[in-house]
Amino acid sequence: MSSELSATLPRLQMLSTSDHASIVSMNLFVALLCACIVIGHLLEENRWMNESITALVIGLCTGVVILLISGGKSSHLLVFSEDLFFIYLLPPIIFNAGFQVKKKQFFVNFITIVMFGAIGTLISCAIITFGVTQIFKRMDIGSLELGDYLAIGAIFAATDSVCTLQVLNQDETPLLYSLVFGEGVVNDATSVVLFNAIQSFDLTHIDHMIPLHFFGNFLYLFLTSTLLGVLTGLISAYIIKKLYIGRHSTDREVALMMLMAYLSYMLAELCYLSGILTVFFCGIVMSHYTWHNVTESSRITTKHAFATLSFVAEIFIFLYVGMDALDIEKWRFVSDSPGTSVAVSSVLLALVLVGRAAFVFPLSFLSNLTKKSPDLKISIRQQVIIWWAGLMRGAVSIALAYNQFTMSGHTQLRANAIMITSTITVVLVSTMVFGLMTKPLIRLLLPHQKPTTSMLLLSDPSTPKSVTVPLLGAVQYSEADLDGHDIPRRSSLRALLSTPTHTVHRYWRKFDDAFMRPVFGGRGFVPVAPGSPTELVQQWQ
Amino acid sequence: MSSELSATLPRLQMLSTSDHASIVSMNLFVALLCACIVIGHLLEENRWMNESITALVIGLCTGVVILLISGGKSSHLLVFSEDLFFIYLLPPIIFNAGFQVKKKQFFVNFITIVMFGAIGTLISCAIITFGVTQIFKRMDIGSLELGDYLAIGAIFAATDSVCTLQVLNQDETPLLYSLVFGEGVVNDATSVVLFNAIQSFDLTHIDHMIPLHFFGNFLYLFLTSTLLGVLTGLISAYIIKKLYIGRHSTDREVALMMLMAYLSYMLAELCYLSGILTVFFCGIVMSHYTWHNVTESSRITTKHAFATLSFVAEIFIFLYVGMDALDIEKWRFVSDSPGTSVAVSSVLLALVLVGRAAFVFPLSFLSNLTKKSPDLKISIRQQVIIWWAGLMRGAVSIALAYNQFTMSGHTQLRANAIMITSTITVVLVSTMVFGLMTKPLIRLLLPHQKPTTSMLLLSDPSTPKSVTVPLLGAVQYSEADLDGHDIPRRSSLRALLSTPTHTVHRYWRKFDDAFMRPVFGGRGFVPVAPGSPTELVQQWQ
Repeated sequence: MSSELSATLPRLQMLSTSDHASIVSMNLFVALLCACIVIGHLLEENRWMNESITALVIGLCTGVVILLISGGKSSHLLVFSEDLFFIYLLPPIIFNAGFQVKKKQFFVNFITIVMFGAIGTLISCAIITFGVTQIFKRMDIGSLELGDYLAIGAIFAATDSVCTLQVLNQDETPLLYSLVFGEGVVNDATSVVLFNAIQSFDLTHIDHMIPLHFFGNFLYLFLTSTLLGVLTGLISAYIIKKLYIGRHSTDREVALMMLMAYLSYMLAELCYLSGILTVFFCGIVMSHYTWHNVTESSRITTKHAFATLSFVAEIFIFLYVGMDALDIEKWRFVSDSPGTSVAVSSVLLALVLVGRAAFVFPLSFLSNLTKKSPDLKISIRQQVIIWWAGLMRGAVSIALAYNQFTMSGHTQLRANAIMITSTITVVLVSTMVFGLMTKPLIRLLLPHQKPTTSMLLLSDPSTPKSVTVPLLGAVQYSEADLDGHDIPRRSSLRALLSTPTHTVHRYWRKFDDAFMRPVFGGRGFVPVAPGSPTELVQQWQ
Repeated sequence: MSSELSATLPRLQMLSTSDHASIVSMNLFVALLCACIVIGHLLEENRWMNESITALVIGLCTGVVILLISGGKSSHLLVFSEDLFFIYLLPPIIFNAGFQVKKKQFFVNFITIVMFGAIGTLISCAIITFGVTQIFKRMDIGSLELGDYLAIGAIFAATDSVCTLQVLNQDETPLLYSLVFGEGVVNDATSVVLFNAIQSFDLTHIDHMIPLHFFGNFLYLFLTSTLLGVLTGLISAYIIKKLYIGRHSTDREVALMMLMAYLSYMLAELCYLSGILTVFFCGIVMSHYTWHNVTESSRITTKHAFATLSFVAEIFIFLYVGMDALDIEKWRFVSDSPGTSVAVSSVLLALVLVGRAAFVFPLSFLSNLTKKSPDLKISIRQQVIIWWAGLMRGAVSIALAYNQFTMSGHTQLRANAIMITSTITVVLVSTMVFGLMTKPLIRLLLPHQKPTTSMLLLSDPSTPKSVTVPLLGAVQYSEADLDGHDIPRRSSLRALLSTPTHTVHRYWRKFDDAFMRPVFGGRGFVPVAPGSPTELVQQWQ
């Protein structure tokens, strides 16, 4: 590390000088963010719109205005920067997702989620790559190599978990939410891993070892990234519990949680792991242990502050994408052949639709085979929603496309410019059209989303958000059981055979209570005053 | 604006590409921040140390380690950037100061504070400029012009309000805290205004109009900046009250408050006003109106989140200054004549001591003349503490010095390099030596800091932090009076003559209750549930 440090340190100038123009653009951008929040609030009760689409539309309109003011020279305030996205905006969003996710629901469906996220993304990528290789050869696009085709597959296999979070509701459709969102996180990681693998692999020597090599690489990344996230989370829990930092200052606790979470992401990036997976699991561990070790006011603060940061980052991304969509430099290349651009975008959209259908329905079928209870099976209507809700492409796709087809935001090749504009078109169309239609589609397919009698509703205070978990009708846990106090139950072997995931969960609870919580804290191991602010606040929300 | 936008927009690339080395340095930096927090917590009970000095020492040590590892090539992880400081780190610190300040105490002493901050800074600047002009001419430094000497005066007239906040305690010494801290904010603004005025004035044609011109300029900046801050704060209060944003999402409220506060700072920078003053008054208005219009959980969140952001920014600055102190590029120039550098630093330190003494004691004397009650007068012991606590120089001085004596962080002139290294030396010595000795000095000079019988302690829930205000023994307001319900009191005229500030305050309360609060919200105009989390949390802290 020493030679690395010394060689490159002088180059690190974090921020270039800000002249008056950058202050003008920052003003505009912050003002637009405020406008998005206010307008998003006013449109809250609208049945079609959501915050993402509002921000996207406002961004587009601003882009048009700037384009007119600047006389057709420029349309955005800030040049799209992958770094800004991957280093500053994505980590808070994914961390917050892990921090607020319904852990039980997530882990109950863990195998299905990983199947969808990992195998599904591979299938989707393969189909898109195969499709573009066949179709683009017959179109007048320009020179694209095998690496480019594979990259296109990876780019358009990345679903947009941010927009999905806004369309699905964790409380109304918990199963769908956890499946689609969990898939989104694993999918993000898979796409980035896939993309990096494609960029680094030597594609001139293809042999049968490559799939094996890739699979090994993926498994290694998945496990080490998860481990790193869990470890960082546990360290933060241990430090805060052991030193009892809240004794002197609640601000220190909040700061430490924020910094440790960010550190986990940066450490993963440092070790070339998947920061997204790491920070997601760090969020889960922090909400399970660390969050219970801090003072009451820190709990409320972290819960809302993380959500707010994530919320602002999301709006920022959509505003940015909307403004960036009109970037005149790229559109100039395709303006002489608008037909080609439309055709390429349509082909890509069609392949996205097919690629997703090709794994959602078969994998759901496989998943249903392992489930005995009809309540846990994914119905055909739910499958359609899963298929539809994951069609949106977002900022990850754009960031990857910029990485593959431009040199620091600029390109001079026609084929590359077409790919960039098509990516933007696909993102805009999929977010607006598919996004707008998701809410009505859910209402159409699943009209009765009130919890049915077979679902036992539990409000589990062990996660920052109040949790609603539908459980098996047969094996009903009481609240006391979840807290680790044993009640008479069926023999473990029989339970394991009938409901393997739940039994694993029970053993985990035992282990957690016996070894983990005494060391790392967590609910029940930190005294909670009755009638505490957290509980009061939760009642009022 | 249109031409401005179009001309400079393409240049705005916010963040340069981050290679692996920048990830390494970010990891180290975040890890160091965590270390500072933990070590600061462990040293909390230490009677000498405070968080600033801890961060400074850790930064210095890291600098030494990096210097050794890199073989003497470099000592910092990030090049010092004025932008990073003025655009990202300073606003949250000053906003939080305004948000948490004890408003009553601040406004009661408003005239004294402005006298200290504005006139005092001018006196200090004049003395330092005069001193360096006389002394540096006889030393072998290199070519410095009149503009440089004036800039040195402005640079070393800027006290460090950040470190002061950590040394003085708002609850133990409220009068001193409000005086020194309030002075610090006004002083920051005065120094920056002074510095900009010096840089932009044509110094070849000096006539008697310049002082008048400068004074007019300062008054204009002070009033417009304050007005802009108040206006932004009121708009945020109005929007949140009118739209009742908390109805749908608490996160939106918090996000809107954060963004509007930042917008006020950026708007001030846009109009070439003092962002520091603007964001400070925006913080005051937000804590008086906006804060009462949001939901309970948003109140707790904003209170702690803003404090946390400010806290992290402070540690960041000191860590940064500590690491930057060993920047080898500047020290190379002075390494052949260490005597000169030591001499220059000593001269500057002496002038800082003299310059501050030259206004604290005379102005305190003037201030005491206007006060009748001996309780409100500034005793000679308190004057010594005010003098001492404002001696620290900090990041503002360094940022201004970099601005005057370097081109984007680099310099090749010997005189400039000497000024930069001397600034760093003065900052380090003043923060460490003066900072370390402030706590013991206060304990020595004011051994009994428990509130005396002549002080009436009020816990005023109208500010985010629980407020403790010592009032006049003669005119005792009850809690009900502060809420705007009238109780029999002496005739207004007599009251105005005897205690002008308090009477102004009473009229302000009447106006506030009759016109402002019904429109902008505030305590008493938003229903508060008894036994609400805020109150419970405050009990526990």
